[in-house]
Amino acid sequence: MALTEKALELHEKWNGKIATTSKCEVKSRDDLALAYTPGVAEPCKVIEKDPEAAYRYTIKANTIAVVSDGSAVLGLGNIGARAAMPVMEGKCVLFKEFGGVNAFPICLDTQDTEEIIRTVVNIAPAFGGINLEDISAPRCFEIESRLKEMLDIPVFHDDQHGTAIVVLAGIINALKVTGKAKEDCRVVINGPGSAGIAIAKLLLSYGFRHITLCNRRGILAKDTPNLNWMQQQMLEVTNLENAHGSLADAMRGSDIFIGVSGPNVVSQEMVASMNPDSILFAMANPVPEIMPDLARAAGARIIGTGRSDFPNQVNNVVAFPGIFRGALEGRAPQITEEMKLAAALAIAGLVSDDELSEVNILPEAFDPRVCEAVSNAVKAHIHR
Amino acid sequence: MALTEKALELHEKWNGKIATTSKCEVKSRDDLALAYTPGVAEPCKVIEKDPEAAYRYTIKANTIAVVSDGSAVLGLGNIGARAAMPVMEGKCVLFKEFGGVNAFPICLDTQDTEEIIRTVVNIAPAFGGINLEDISAPRCFEIESRLKEMLDIPVFHDDQHGTAIVVLAGIINALKVTGKAKEDCRVVINGPGSAGIAIAKLLLSYGFRHITLCNRRGILAKDTPNLNWMQQQMLEVTNLENAHGSLADAMRGSDIFIGVSGPNVVSQEMVASMNPDSILFAMANPVPEIMPDLARAAGARIIGTGRSDFPNQVNNVVAFPGIFRGALEGRAPQITEEMKLAAALAIAGLVSDDELSEVNILPEAFDPRVCEAVSNAVKAHIHR
Repeated sequence: MALTEKALELHEKWNGKIATTSKCEVKSRDDLALAYTPGVAEPCKVIEKDPEAAYRYTIKANTIAVVSDGSAVLGLGNIGARAAMPVMEGKCVLFKEFGGVNAFPICLDTQDTEEIIRTVVNIAPAFGGINLEDISAPRCFEIESRLKEMLDIPVFHDDQHGTAIVVLAGIINALKVTGKAKEDCRVVINGPGSAGIAIAKLLLSYGFRHITLCNRRGILAKDTPNLNWMQQQMLEVTNLENAHGSLADAMRGSDIFIGVSGPNVVSQEMVASMNPDSILFAMANPVPEIMPDLARAAGARIIGTGRSDFPNQVNNVVAFPGIFRGALEGRAPQITEEMKLAAALAIAGLVSDDELSEVNILPEAFDPRVCEAVSNAVKAHIHR
Repeated sequence: MALTEKALELHEKWNGKIATTSKCEVKSRDDLALAYTPGVAEPCKVIEKDPEAAYRYTIKANTIAVVSDGSAVLGLGNIGARAAMPVMEGKCVLFKEFGGVNAFPICLDTQDTEEIIRTVVNIAPAFGGINLEDISAPRCFEIESRLKEMLDIPVFHDDQHGTAIVVLAGIINALKVTGKAKEDCRVVINGPGSAGIAIAKLLLSYGFRHITLCNRRGILAKDTPNLNWMQQQMLEVTNLENAHGSLADAMRGSDIFIGVSGPNVVSQEMVASMNPDSILFAMANPVPEIMPDLARAAGARIIGTGRSDFPNQVNNVVAFPGIFRGALEGRAPQITEEMKLAAALAIAGLVSDDELSEVNILPEAFDPRVCEAVSNAVKAHIHR
């Protein structure tokens, strides 16, 4: 049976991929009196006096919301809240299975920035964290930054930061393999959306200096028309020479290409025009910016994709479960830049020097050490 | 150990009374490809074309939200969203354990009617139903009726309708025991809040004709000051003689007293002034309007309370799990008056004529037949 048919059949069988379960028994009147009235009044009264006690007595301690407005779901685009549910449920499954984090999908029947912000603030009391998911750029930037200001729990847009953390982890190890120095590397990021911009920011935080963003028309420069406010803002810290030209122009003489764009937009000629020991992360899904065999034939040394059937899969699942696991355990009020860098280093560190090679720069998604390593890295950088 | 201490200790041990669990395995790359990308795109695409398919492929089929703004929690009053969480989690536990319904607590950090309505509408896509809980009157009436208009899933304020259904079930059986006819009974309801008003409405739907509402100053009449809009509206259908006076005046010559008010507000003299074979539901918690032994000594024939340590406990748990179980299974777009009446009759019908007596008018909370009986009654009255 084809994957698509099987997926559909299984989704019908599951009829919802998550369930809520009770952690307490209610088999008798005595049970009921403890878990519900009148006993339940006690933790309520304690929390009323001391809001922090919510972390002792309620699901806030270990539960997050996976929030989407369905505006940018996978490669499917703006399919809306209802149709986004299978993805958000899947994300909740991954949070639980990989991170032990309880997660509940909140799919919003609005795509208005203000409504989304208000709604998330209104429902926050139950949750210890908010994972934003598949919200289109540039709204996602404002929604995240406003929510971070308004809420005292971590808010994390995984499409941005989860991707950026795993890309940085892969790059850290790719630099080790190639012997390149981050300060000298010329980096091209194709696709200046939520992921591309977050990757650029995190690479800059890590110490990269030369980053050029491209869209489908080529290099983003100060006079490029129709840029959104975030892309304009990024031109303060990227393309410092204010270069102009095509993606091919950008890639000539570059060291690292990072694609979060579309299928087959990179040619072998472009790869061949890069500096020696070039590093390519071609993460368009399911068809990458260039197929790995073609990239390799054209001279690329390290090639990563988003796919599990090629080496060096860049998979967010090595980041987000541990990020929230650590943030919840350590009661982090937010996920800081420092934590993201620490998480990337922790992920990179799981590939030992012996194991490290062109085709092995990232740990496996199912490597059982990943979540704990990321979680510990996050917890080590909580300052309260 | 006292109940209060033990409840606190257990709540700390539970650290949240519910959890989310995965219904699908993700132990391998193949699992991941079916439950998450790329397989998950298939149900998304189907739902995008046919929104009804959400009921086949997502948790919408069997999951409800338990929504509160923390404004009227148990007897604790307006304790706010965070402090309300233990109660809402407890409610979710009961939905699951008694009804097999997945339920998630949504405690709202706002008590503004418009904000609450917008927030619930915005988060509705994930849910197959909305159970409103512990929202103060009269806001609860507007919130519920507006949400019923705006949403295509059942919206049910349990403090109103759950209570009303179980009270009616008890009354139906009390009438059998006493031989009274509903058309002739004079009913006094003390406490014109959400529960009291819903009880009055459902008794009227069932065929009662003579209902008087009282508040702490006495009988509600057309010139009673400071009534809210719902109480004023209720005066079109209750106290048709526009009687004036105290609670004692109202109870004199009445057949049924229903208390959803406060402790010890009914005296033995008041009970003695009622008609023969009087029926008292004294449901204030934990201390009833009059203690059962005193009421009996004063001549009451049937006495119910909210407590499990006296006979005839009026406990919502015999209604709400089955209500939503049936509504979800039958895909009811709302919970109608007809369904509420059917549910009450179904609950009453579980006490056989042999078992029926002054001290046995309602089924036990843990009676395993209850949920199915209520669920079937609801399903039998779905017209789409």
